[in-house]
Amino acid sequence: MTLPCGAPNSSLAVPGDTIGILGSGQLGRMLALAAARLDLKVHIFAPEIGPANEVASVFTVAAYEDEAALSAFAAGIKLVTYEFENVPAGTAQFLGARLPVLPPPAALATSQDRLLEKQFLNGLGIETAPFIEVNDAGSLARAVAQLGRPSILKTRRFGYDGKGQVMIREGSDLAVTYRSTGSVPCILEGVVPFTREVSVIGARSSDGDFTAWDVCENQHENHILAKTLVPAEIEPESADEAIAIARKIAEGLDYVGVLAVEMFAVEQDTSQDRREQLIVNEIAPRVHNSGHWTIDGARTCQFEQHIRAICGWPLGSTVRHGRIEMCNLIGDQIQDWRKLAGERDNAVHIYGKEEARPGRKMGHITRIID
Amino acid sequence: MTLPCGAPNSSLAVPGDTIGILGSGQLGRMLALAAARLDLKVHIFAPEIGPANEVASVFTVAAYEDEAALSAFAAGIKLVTYEFENVPAGTAQFLGARLPVLPPPAALATSQDRLLEKQFLNGLGIETAPFIEVNDAGSLARAVAQLGRPSILKTRRFGYDGKGQVMIREGSDLAVTYRSTGSVPCILEGVVPFTREVSVIGARSSDGDFTAWDVCENQHENHILAKTLVPAEIEPESADEAIAIARKIAEGLDYVGVLAVEMFAVEQDTSQDRREQLIVNEIAPRVHNSGHWTIDGARTCQFEQHIRAICGWPLGSTVRHGRIEMCNLIGDQIQDWRKLAGERDNAVHIYGKEEARPGRKMGHITRIID
Repeated sequence: MTLPCGAPNSSLAVPGDTIGILGSGQLGRMLALAAARLDLKVHIFAPEIGPANEVASVFTVAAYEDEAALSAFAAGIKLVTYEFENVPAGTAQFLGARLPVLPPPAALATSQDRLLEKQFLNGLGIETAPFIEVNDAGSLARAVAQLGRPSILKTRRFGYDGKGQVMIREGSDLAVTYRSTGSVPCILEGVVPFTREVSVIGARSSDGDFTAWDVCENQHENHILAKTLVPAEIEPESADEAIAIARKIAEGLDYVGVLAVEMFAVEQDTSQDRREQLIVNEIAPRVHNSGHWTIDGARTCQFEQHIRAICGWPLGSTVRHGRIEMCNLIGDQIQDWRKLAGERDNAVHIYGKEEARPGRKMGHITRIID
Repeated sequence: MTLPCGAPNSSLAVPGDTIGILGSGQLGRMLALAAARLDLKVHIFAPEIGPANEVASVFTVAAYEDEAALSAFAAGIKLVTYEFENVPAGTAQFLGARLPVLPPPAALATSQDRLLEKQFLNGLGIETAPFIEVNDAGSLARAVAQLGRPSILKTRRFGYDGKGQVMIREGSDLAVTYRSTGSVPCILEGVVPFTREVSVIGARSSDGDFTAWDVCENQHENHILAKTLVPAEIEPESADEAIAIARKIAEGLDYVGVLAVEMFAVEQDTSQDRREQLIVNEIAPRVHNSGHWTIDGARTCQFEQHIRAICGWPLGSTVRHGRIEMCNLIGDQIQDWRKLAGERDNAVHIYGKEEARPGRKMGHITRIID
């Protein structure tokens, strides 16, 4: 049933419509499940079958460069979104000429490139780690001389879960290290002596409304998110500032949808009026692993909020149900599903991936601790 | 991925498996969405396409008597459940010879027939409205002489949302009234002067574990559920008794899955030690409209709990997130979806039915009021 809009601020997609999602991972799966509650159907487009296909109304398995497949995809949907930030710029552009692509492709372009991202953040007056552009072994040597050791060499593009980055320590051979990146454009980042890693999951609607959930505290193991605790143990003023930073970023990107901003909380010396300083590490222009707890732990989950935002619907409440602990189930940890389901406070999510490879996110559990 | 069981109490279905559901309505849809979180796929079998088809992995549109279709259905699933109580006994029997049918078909048989249901309840010592079997106009006249007017003539089978029942008042012509039921087997019920209608949604696992959500208070309009409020405004002792009654029924039926027990709360005279007496109206051997609030308002929703129970998984927590109001969106009320989505405390659910006919349940909203 295609329903009329109940308000003058017309929606891009209404109940009964189909929306497109680029990517077939667990984020696409959770978006599709949230969309279904609102009677929005989902068409998944991805180069490979993944967890999202199982719950999508329609799916297309084709390369992101396959323009015939993209045209057919675009013809049946009201708008398109994505579940990861490495959508090729050409794909976003091709689709953008045909229908709304949300969040806006400019936000993708900014967050796909660590150099542009940090320049954008600094341009808004937001603190980042110190960084220097690196394009060859020579510029790496000059950058290391300036930022010192340890420092981190990161590829400008395609980094996630610790991929595309290498620590430069005392004695590291800089030419070898640079070649290990594939000799691609990089940045060198100074090491931030953080005490906590936090993230803000926020959403902005096309009419400028902004909502955020409480600040999340994230614990990584082997560069992969292991655990999220909410609320983060930071000062209330820092929590307010973290959300204000996320809002500033969303506004700076003219963003529509859910975005995640990862930050470092750094202890300041006692002469400062605040204990913590916040340094932005990364923007993820999408729903985010550290927001999975919102499915069970908040009035509106990040997946529904993203769908509401991109479809031009009003945003929902982000009120939290209690103190939260979310644990990823990585690789073989998924084998414990029955034991975990038997701990009465656990909400269990299993993504339906074929193979439990080491380091692979297979599911998660959320606990509400009152 | 088919995962091993993590405990000796083996499950009937594990992540990656497919389970079958008879019926394609909104209850089947919400069951399928809950199953997906646990990586359980759903095969819907129903005589017509409905809201559940859209979110099912597989569906079969065939008559419940189509044994070839039922055989093919049974071959690909680990167990079968149903989203409504009027599954033909022959269908349950045919499938039961091939694979587990849960809740047990005996519970279906009891709750499909108002006479058997009331006899079963009274046999457990549970109060019901007074009732007399009616098989013709003569026995109706004798029953009315005994129970008085007003009283309610109800068909023994196929009643829901006020269908299959007619009020007998002063002056009603009994022969005409009996013929209006189609001259089928009936019961005459005495009218219960209730002050509130309440329901208990509970779940029982195959190892006898029982959980229930807080007692729901239900308001009907034109015999259709309009609103559910939780917790019901009854005395704490009555709430405990209501849950004890539901548990007794579940145990009496050797039940596995979610069941709903509808009750009347009747004001007692002040000489009694308790204000309210509870009278059971009806058993629904399935997830129930008055439990829809659990999706947004409780740690585990009735749909996931049903899936957990029938698959042999441990039951989840029924802790409530706050005071609850659930409103059905009936017929044209669904047209207000955008306005309703704009009230920030509303969780909106739209079932994807093609046509908003009067009296048709098109969606619901849940509000958590703290």
